[in-house]
Parts: sequence; C-alpha cells; structure tokens
Amino acid sequence: MSGNTFGHLFKITTWGESHGNAVGVVIDGCPPQIPITASDIQAMLDRRKPGGSLASTSRKEKDTAVILSGTFENKTTGTPIMIMVENRDANSNAYQHYADVYRPGHADITYMAKYGIRDWRGGGRSSARETVGRVAAGAVARLILNQAGIEVFAFTRSLGKINCKSFDRSVIEQNTFFAPDLTAADLMQREVAEAKRTGDSVGGIVEIRALGVPAGLGEPVFDKLDADLAKALMSIGAIKGVEIGSGFHAATQRGSQNNDPITADGFLSNNAGGILGGISNGDDIIVRAAVKPIPSISIEQDTIDTNGNPRKITIKGRHDVSAIPRINVVCEAMVSIVVTDHFLRQKIFHFESLTNYGKIEY
Amino acid sequence: MSGNTFGHLFKITTWGESHGNAVGVVIDGCPPQIPITASDIQAMLDRRKPGGSLASTSRKEKDTAVILSGTFENKTTGTPIMIMVENRDANSNAYQHYADVYRPGHADITYMAKYGIRDWRGGGRSSARETVGRVAAGAVARLILNQAGIEVFAFTRSLGKINCKSFDRSVIEQNTFFAPDLTAADLMQREVAEAKRTGDSVGGIVEIRALGVPAGLGEPVFDKLDADLAKALMSIGAIKGVEIGSGFHAATQRGSQNNDPITADGFLSNNAGGILGGISNGDDIIVRAAVKPIPSISIEQDTIDTNGNPRKITIKGRHDVSAIPRINVVCEAMVSIVVTDHFLRQKIFHFESLTNYGKIEY
Amino acid sequence: MSGNTFGHLFKITTWGESHGNAVGVVIDGCPPQIPITASDIQAMLDRRKPGGSLASTSRKEKDTAVILSGTFENKTTGTPIMIMVENRDANSNAYQHYADVYRPGHADITYMAKYGIRDWRGGGRSSARETVGRVAAGAVARLILNQAGIEVFAFTRSLGKINCKSFDRSVIEQNTFFAPDLTAADLMQREVAEAKRTGDSVGGIVEIRALGVPAGLGEPVFDKLDADLAKALMSIGAIKGVEIGSGFHAATQRGSQNNDPITADGFLSNNAGGILGGISNGDDIIVRAAVKPIPSISIEQDTIDTNGNPRKITIKGRHDVSAIPRINVVCEAMVSIVVTDHFLRQKIFHFESLTNYGKIEY
Amino acid sequence: MSGNTFGHLFKITTWGESHGNAVGVVIDGCPPQIPITASDIQAMLDRRKPGGSLASTSRKEKDTAVILSGTFENKTTGTPIMIMVENRDANSNAYQHYADVYRPGHADITYMAKYGIRDWRGGGRSSARETVGRVAAGAVARLILNQAGIEVFAFTRSLGKINCKSFDRSVIEQNTFFAPDLTAADLMQREVAEAKRTGDSVGGIVEIRALGVPAGLGEPVFDKLDADLAKALMSIGAIKGVEIGSGFHAATQRGSQNNDPITADGFLSNNAGGILGGISNGDDIIVRAAVKPIPSISIEQDTIDTNGNPRKITIKGRHDVSAIPRINVVCEAMVSIVVTDHFLRQKIFHFESLTNYGKIEY
Repeated sequence: MSGNTFGHLFKITTWGESHGNAVGVVIDGCPPQIPITASDIQAMLDRRKPGGSLASTSRKEKDTAVILSGTFENKTTGTPIMIMVENRDANSNAYQHYADVYRPGHADITYMAKYGIRDWRGGGRSSARETVGRVAAGAVARLILNQAGIEVFAFTRSLGKINCKSFDRSVIEQNTFFAPDLTAADLMQREVAEAKRTGDSVGGIVEIRALGVPAGLGEPVFDKLDADLAKALMSIGAIKGVEIGSGFHAATQRGSQNNDPITADGFLSNNAGGILGGISNGDDIIVRAAVKPIPSISIEQDTIDTNGNPRKITIKGRHDVSAIPRINVVCEAMVSIVVTDHFLRQKIFHFESLTNYGKIEY
Repeated sequence: MSGNTFGHLFKITTWGESHGNAVGVVIDGCPPQIPITASDIQAMLDRRKPGGSLASTSRKEKDTAVILSGTFENKTTGTPIMIMVENRDANSNAYQHYADVYRPGHADITYMAKYGIRDWRGGGRSSARETVGRVAAGAVARLILNQAGIEVFAFTRSLGKINCKSFDRSVIEQNTFFAPDLTAADLMQREVAEAKRTGDSVGGIVEIRALGVPAGLGEPVFDKLDADLAKALMSIGAIKGVEIGSGFHAATQRGSQNNDPITADGFLSNNAGGILGGISNGDDIIVRAAVKPIPSISIEQDTIDTNGNPRKITIKGRHDVSAIPRINVVCEAMVSIVVTDHFLRQKIFHFESLTNYGKIEY
Repeated sequence: MSGNTFGHLFKITTWGESHGNAVGVVIDGCPPQIPITASDIQAMLDRRKPGGSLASTSRKEKDTAVILSGTFENKTTGTPIMIMVENRDANSNAYQHYADVYRPGHADITYMAKYGIRDWRGGGRSSARETVGRVAAGAVARLILNQAGIEVFAFTRSLGKINCKSFDRSVIEQNTFFAPDLTAADLMQREVAEAKRTGDSVGGIVEIRALGVPAGLGEPVFDKLDADLAKALMSIGAIKGVEIGSGFHAATQRGSQNNDPITADGFLSNNAGGILGGISNGDDIIVRAAVKPIPSISIEQDTIDTNGNPRKITIKGRHDVSAIPRINVVCEAMVSIVVTDHFLRQKIFHFESLTNYGKIEY
Repeated sequence: MSGNTFGHLFKITTWGESHGNAVGVVIDGCPPQIPITASDIQAMLDRRKPGGSLASTSRKEKDTAVILSGTFENKTTGTPIMIMVENRDANSNAYQHYADVYRPGHADITYMAKYGIRDWRGGGRSSARETVGRVAAGAVARLILNQAGIEVFAFTRSLGKINCKSFDRSVIEQNTFFAPDLTAADLMQREVAEAKRTGDSVGGIVEIRALGVPAGLGEPVFDKLDADLAKALMSIGAIKGVEIGSGFHAATQRGSQNNDPITADGFLSNNAGGILGGISNGDDIIVRAAVKPIPSISIEQDTIDTNGNPRKITIKGRHDVSAIPRINVVCEAMVSIVVTDHFLRQKIFHFESLTNYGKIEY
C-alpha cells in the first residue's frame, strides 16, 4: 500500500522497474526559483554509473536524465519536477531462467508473497535500478543545500574486511572505491578481485557526512533527524544497519566517555554524530550504513522454484561484486533528501515577522 | 513541524512533557471490536516502571493508565483511543538549577536552538517520560498482534562490555536486566554497581524479535519493514544504531556466507533477520538497537550556560544508571506498533472477494 | 482507518465521544513562543455553548478547557498541545431506548455498517460534541492568525427560509442567531419557535469570511485553499454543501459577469471569493456552508431496529432546533485551522536568506 | 509545499504543465493483479478530448497514454503505475503576449504571488491540461471499482440558465453536452452558440453519481466520504461549489422533510445523497459541482500587467466556451478515485480471520 513516497515538504515519489520502459521520480515541494539544468542531474547519475570500477557490473546504461516538468527557463517553478531515465540497455532474456525460481538473498520470494505476482525481469521494482530516481532527487536536493551552505558527501569506510585507517577527503573521488585512504583502496581492489575469482561478493560500510547543517533540524519525537536518516538509509536495498556518531560503539562506553563536552565554540568531541535528542546540534552529521554482500553470486546455492521444489541455482550475468561504491551515491542522495526536507520543515518556525510576505509586488 | 505522529493505518500521536500535568497518546486506526481493558495497558506500563532494578531510578511513578475514549463495553469501537497517565511524582524544583545550563548529551541545547524556548523541567518533551505514550500504544498493538498469532519480545543483548553468551528465553523476565543469560545478568549487576559507584552510566544493546509474522509485510520502496523498524527504534532517545539480522556483521561477510538458502520448509539460516527487499519472509524478525549510556552522570563535566559562559556541571538526582532495561519495553512497543501498522497495510491487498462486505446485516 | 487528523503543518487530532469521559484535541505543529492561556480557549468554547439561544439545547455543559501539554510559562513550546474538556452533564440513560434502533438522518446505521459496533450513548463519536476539540484547536489557530493580521468570522446567512437582507457586522454578536441583520434575526426567532412548536427542526446557511489573508496561500493542484476549505467544512456533521465566492450562482453566469476585473489597487469585484486557481488573491476569503435541519425531531418517523424490523420513532430530549448558531463557531474554527495551516505551508517558500537561521544564540 | 498528491491508499501524484514536454500521473497503491491495458486509459482520455462538442476548443491534442511502469503482462503488480501523455499540439507562441499580463479569472496573478515565478505558456500548471493525469488515474480506479460492482458516472445538470428537466441515463452519451435530457441539450447548444457569438462563456452544474457503493465507506471525523468528495471536486479548476444529496436545498427544509425514512429494504428517499455521518449508507452517492464560466473570453476586460500598470485584455485563441462537458469526465475521475481510496481504506476493517494470509503458496 503506497510506500513509494518519501519526505514531508521535499517529497519524492520514485517509479519504474529494472526492465520496464523507464525509471524516474516526481519531486513535489521543491522551492521555486532554484536554478536547475538537466546536467545538474546528469552529473550525479554519472557517479552511480556502472563500469567505473572493477567492483561494478559491465552493464552499460546510458542513463540520460530528462526533466519533463516543474522548470521554466532553467529555474524551478514550485510545481512537481518529474525526471525520467529510459531503460535502454535492459536485456530481459538474461533473466528468463530466473522466472520460475527464487534467488537467495533477493526479494523474489517476498514480492511473490506480498503481491502474488512478480516482474522477474532483473528483479523488477526491487532492483537497484530504482535508485536512479533517488539519485536524481538527491541532485535536486543538493541544489537547495548548496544555497544553504550545506554539503553532503559519502565515502567507503570498509569493504569486506578491509578498513580505511586514515581519512583524506581529497582522495575519495580519486579511487574507484570512494575510499579516503589510498592504501586501503589498493587492498579493496585485491579483495574484490579475489571475491570475483571465486564467484563470490563482498559487503562493506559506507559513511555519510553532512557539513554546515544548522542547529535545530529534526522534528521530535518521531520525525527526529536521526530517525529519518535511519529510515532513509535502511530503505536502500542491501543496507542492514545504520548508526549515528559513535553508534554501536556507544553501547560499550560509559557516559563520561560518550558525552560530548560543550564549549562556547562548540562541542569538544562528536560522539553524538551531530544530533542530540533527534535535533541537529550544529556539528557535522555523521552516519554509517552497513551494506550486505550482493546476493547474486555464481557459486551454487540451494533454493526452491515457484512450485516449492528444491533447486540448485548459479547466478551468472552482469552483476557487481559489491554494492559499494555505486551505493555510496545513493546513500549521499538519501541523506541530502532528508536534510533538505528537515531544512524546509524548520523554515516554518523562523518567522521574524509573520506579516512580511504575500504581497503581490510589481 | 508536527513530528509527533507515527504510523499510517495504526497511527499514534504522543503528547506530554516530563513535568507537565500528564502524558499520553491518541491511537487512530485501531480496528473495532478488539477486546480491551485498562489493565491490558497497565500491565505493559508496569514493565517500564522504574524501581524494578538496580539500574533504575528511584522515582516512584504511579503510572495509572486511563482510557478516555475509543472503547465501549470493553471493546474498541474504531474511533480514536486516548490513553492518559498523570504525572504525580514530578518534582520540578530538583531541575531548577539546570534551568540556565545545557546538560551534555541531553537535548537541552538543541531544543533551545530549534524552538527558542525550552521547558527545562525534567527535560520536558525530550524526557524518556514521553515513552509512556509509546508503551501504552504498544499494549494496544499487542492485542491486535495476539489475534494474528504474532508475538514480539525484547531482551538485553549486552550491557556495557558484558555480552550475553547463551539464550534462554524463559529467563528473560526472571532477572532485572531482561537478559536471556543469567550468568551475564549477574555480571551486568556488577557492571551497573561499579558505574553507579563512580557516578557514571553504561550503554548496551537491546534485541527485539517478532515471531509468527506472515510473509508479505512491508511496503517498498520507502516504507520497507526494515526501514520503518529503523525509524521506529532510532526515534527513541538514547538509541544510536539499529541493525537487522546479521546487520553490521554482514558488511564483513561474503555473499556465499550471508545469503540464506531456501528450502520448501523455510530458510536454512536467518542472516536476513526475516526481511528480504524490505518485506517479511515468514522467518523471525530480528532487530538490534544500540543504546548509549545515560548522559546524566554525577561526574563533573564541561558545558555552557544559556548565556554561552563556561560552566562545570554535576548532575545529581534520581537517574537510571542505564536506559536498559526500561528501554527494552519501549523498543518492544515500537516494534509491535510497526508490525501492526504493516499488518493492516497488507490487509488491503488480500481481498478474496471485493464485493463481500459493506452489507448492513441485521 | 485513521481519519481523525486534519492539517499538514498545523495538524489537529480530535478524540472523544459524546458520553465518554472527555473530549479533546492534540495540536501538533503550533509554532513555539505564541502567548497562550486556558482562557483563550475557554472564550471560544463559551461561544459554542448551548443555552445561549432559543434554538439551542437545554443541556448545560460546563465545558472547561484544560491545557495538559505543549505550553510553558504561558507560551507554546512547539511540542504537541493537548486540550481536554471533561463530559460532566452527560446522561446516557436518556439514550438507552435508542440503543437498538437507528435514528433517521443520524449516523447510527452507518457506524454500525462500518464498525460492526456502536456507542449509542448520545451518538458516540458522531455527536456534535466532537466539535469541542475543533473549536479548541481553532482558538489556538486564531492566536497565530492574530499575529499575522488575519481575522476570521462567521455569521448566519439564512435560517430555514429566512434570508438576511442586510449586512452589519457589528450586530452579529448582538443576537442569538449570529445574524448580520437584526430584522432577519427577529424572523428567525419566529421560525425557530414555529418549528419547535411542531416538534420539527430547521436548516440554514452559514457564511465565513477571512480578512487580511495574504496572496499566495494554497497548494495546487490538490491542496488548493478552496479544496481544503471545502473538506474542512464538509467534514462537520450536518453540512451538505460548500461554495466559494459566487459559488453555485456562478454556474448561471457568463464569464464577462463572473470574472473580477483587476486593478493596481486590487480586484473590482469578488466573485472569486478571494481564491484564484486554488491560491488566495489577497481579497477577502468568502465561503458558505449549507446546514441541514437537525435530524432529531419529535415528529414520528419510520425506521428500523438493529434487527431490521420496522419501528416508529419519536425523538425527545435536549436537542437543538437548529445547528445554527452553535455550528457557526465550529465553521469559524475550521476555516481558521485551514488558513493557519496554509499560512505555515507558504512560510517555507519565503526565505530571503537560506542561511539566516539555526545559530544557537547566547 | 507539496500539494500534488491525493488519496491515502490509492494515492495519485500528478505532474506536468500545459506546454511542457508531457503531463502525467504516478498511481501508488493500486492493488496487484488487476488486468490493465493502455486502451483502458485511452478510452477515458478520449472522452475528455476537445473537439467533440461545439462547446469545446479546436486544439487537437493527440492524447496518447503510455504506461511506463507498474504493470507486467497486462496486470498491475502493486508497484507505482506511471502514465504519461506527451504534449504534442502545444503552441506556446500563442501565449507570448500574455507573458507580462494577468488574465482576469485565471491563476496568473496568484501563481506569481505564491511562487515569484510563472510559466505563462498556456497557464502552465494551472491549466486544465493537468487533469489528463487525473483522468488517467480515474481510469485505473474504475478498473478496481468494476470488480467491486461500483459504477460512477457524471452528467450535466445545467448549462448557464438551461436546466435539465428530465433524466434519461441512456441519452447522456448521445449528446455532446452529456445531458440526460435531449430537449435541454438542444437549448444548451443554442446557449453556447449565443455565448460564442458574443465572445463570452458559460458555467453550469455537473452531477456525479456512484451506484453500488457498499455501506461503510468514509473515515470520520475528518476523512468523511463527503468531505473527501468535496475536496476532490473543489480541487478541479473552475469549480466553485459542491453539494451532497439535497445540498443547499436542505438549508431551507424542515427536519421532517429532509430526513430519509429507513425501511428494511433501504431508505425511502435520498436527501442524504447516500452519506450519513460521513459514511456511505448503501444508497446512491449523489454529488453536484458548480462550474464557473471559463475566464478566457474575447470581450475586452480590465486588468494589469506584471508591472502593475492598467491594461485592456482581449483573449483570443482556442478556448472552450464552457468547461462543460469536458470537465464532466474529470469530475467522474475524481469521484472514482475517492470511492476507490475509501473502498481500500474500509478493507482493513474487514478481516474474517486475521491469520488467513501471508502464506507463501506454491
């Protein structure tokens, strides 16, 4: 029942299946008069494109974003922005032999349980292809955040058992793993090569940070900033865990270790991850998401067919070895959308003068 | 902006502050004809009562639940159920000297940043006292789940650095820490005593399981079951991380390890935590939440007052040493609410006969 | 399924039944720092009190409003405001003999069809008593509107076949019918007396105006200002029609008659009722609502009992002869809530500087 | 702020401007397994096509509906259905000379007040062209209603001062005015011809009926069936009034006249318009909408330009003389959407057995 919309004021609705005609998003609630062009969207989509890394699929998608509504003379008008990307490189035949079988770790079996019907072509709606709409919406959110001096970026914290040990932001976009540690990036390359060789896949951890977020964003007690970030990230396929600031580590700490001392110049530490009581505290927002290994592997697995009979399955085709680094851009987009939505929600409370608008000016 | 409502079909709105007149909840969307009495609610509230454990505050709240609407002759009527608990033991004077200072790790500073005004009495709306409404709503959700054969329970996975090493469900309610391992419970008792002695506090991990959940619950792509569980739990104060099934551990695994093989009798493992593609797969739902140590400690800390001047602060009074075990009941309530909401959402799709209702029967 | 909440940013949830313990409302989204006292609410509730007019019931309700949350030192805090009114004068016994019969024109039969259970005491949730929560919320909305220079008021356009022929705003509060024409008020008095004598009831038309509404409020294409006004008013029991500006009369007009010419000083006429394309145009908002005659009449009527057997029914007791004038205050409240909600929604778009907030100031 | 979505369970989001690339709708919440083809949509769109009547514009739109997602092998899958219609016959140059002037009776001036930017090409988002998305969604709703035995149809009650005096449903689709009275249809033809000759336009009243609606639909106290119908219809451009059943006429009646007597075989009259207390009572749903005359007239009018200077304006081009009959299909669509949404909402409450689903069947 209608779960394809996210956000309250900056509201996105994604649509489309992996091997349908197109995928896209409708953005409702984007403020008017924001400068925008298709290339703003394209730039973000290109970052999630496969083929940029050894870890990625060889499917060559020409993901060309088209803005079909909501703009006029390269500005937003305040009306719904519809962005569409056609599915050109979709080859459904490759999926024909999964039509009657449930792939382990995939949503095949649960979509069938839920809907009683399933578009088996490339996973249909459950495909990561759906995230094209999210990334396009994230690109629009970013245009708003830019104006507010807020910056969101994602990077790879770990891939499989390889952890980044240093943090140099400037190298993140210089390696195919979006890692902030080039030494770790080299090891990740080997990790992926090894997994690929054995027909296996690897997981990892993505970290997303938002800088320049003003204090005051987040709506207790349910629409807290961290609660919405958790939902936003957990709604991405493959993500199985989300933590804010010190996260799970905080569970092992004493209060005297985990509390961030306050000074007139800000906090002395950031275990809170920039959020206290569900509201941004002016410090950097820090979130991490645990990404499971891609379930499509060529190693033989046990499963059943749609009649409930046992089957062996070996999944071949153009699959990524890891959702990282392509998923990073999606995480970044979702965090951008959440921060934008809460930024607009907080706008309501800041009215110096309640009467100072609504004049028709000539 | 209006973030105090949770759920779509089973919709709850909590209200009330720590030291106001009362706290409570309005539940809108509870199906009619569910048998209900105040004692169903009371039983759950009693489980979150302080004083049941060494880890808990000595504040004696007589949390008496009153149902003010939505029932008739001990059955729900389909109209909003309003449940209220008066605040009787609230002693605001104890908080007077925090009126002009921001307590580290608390939401004092962010509420001020957001609203420009702050009810400093006991943390006001940001107090854990707000969760009374959640627990009351969870008790109502449980009545629905019972009818559907679904059972939700929570237990303590770890407290500080003490991890449970065995799992015996029958002992969970037999120790004050709601631990499934009595040996660990003993160690937890010591951990808490030690923290208390030094004026410090401890964190921990709560695990929540839902048994008997039918396959098919969850609404991709945003209102996935895991996404809503993540939001529900992260919206609880003190929680800094949420994971489903193998969670963060999955990030270090290979696909061949993490995929759950499928047989006609069900899955051979449950790394998925009962959720695939955001939809329940019929297996147990398994969620964990990381709880930070309670920020109120009597150890001296650095902070600022409301004028921005440096201050030392030492927090005394009736505070828990750990949010666990009282938070467990809250986690259980939130998971119950999410599952109930999605249970009702899925109802819509199951219509044997579309015409078979709406007759006025005599 | 959960239809007891209204509004997006200024969001109200009413609860309670006619003869339950209490009725009330939770307001979520009221901006912080608005001065408020219980007497602000009481003043509005007193205006809907029965007994003020010959048309009204003799039930004496001591409707005392209590604010249970969301305020601190007589200011709103930005957290949910819960306002409750106890039901003291409820006499359920008077309704005992309607427990097994459906009163014509009432919701008895449809509540049974919908929920399969019915609180027959005084109509339960379908009673006009529910509007106490709406009026209380309207009183809060009015506090915000005052600050914005917006004024909302209602008056009686017609009662039965008696139409007001002149408009003098100053006399509206000087007669028990809230009529702007004292001559018509006298005739209304006679109309009501005549209906009362025969055990019958009368309908009428209420007009509501909002002055000082800035241009720009309303959210096309579905949440248009007029669409939300129509819903708000039609959601009040007894209302069967809503029109904006020239309304149904426009259907008989030519475009050249109905269009409002525009000048630099404003519109030369107001057939639009202050709304163009669903957005306020800066002129007065004008809405009318058709109120059906109260269905409770002592004239004998045909109906059935809950077993489907024919019955004659004669409804005695403390009933108003007309919903007017008590419903006027409810209409005024609902219009106030809609305008407040849209006022806050429009706030989002007016940001001189996107960065100019969120600083924690000392 | 994000007002382009309508409905709760059957949720539609329309997008697109009059002279943009395309217009369309995303439908989220359509149940799975409903048979559907593009021609089901096309059939409804063809009924709103201009050119079918003397009253209509001569713009020739080839409104070809394309379903881009949400179906598989000609069945709905439960995922969002995106339907798009390209704008092929749009000639923006014709609107160039309205770029700097506000057309009376149109939303030009209010869009500018609201957004500070305006797509002046054909009215942009405020154009009736937007209703293409509504009609497409209505066509999908109709597929669901068909299965439930519910039928929705609209007809012209009056055009200008011409009222239908008889009702013969079979002739509605046989005249270009969708009138149920062929004699009146002839007079309407003359009325339109006369208005056209003088460069003027005419209004009218549309009536919409829903047959076969089960008792029990509607969600008090705010999402009442009549409240949602009022909002749905009032959200259509040009509509200035909505009434249910006896509507405004009820305001002049006595209770003894307006109450519908109840028998075991149903109601003896239908002044209620099929709705009591906001819930369907099993009788026909009857709603009427007042349509204002089209504001585009070639008679000279007073207005101002975007600098606030006085201007004379004469609107030429391909405009309808009346929104009727094309608006009828839009009204029918909106009523279909509301009934479908409430039909699904009521589904939730009808559970014979709460456990009887969610099995993965083989």
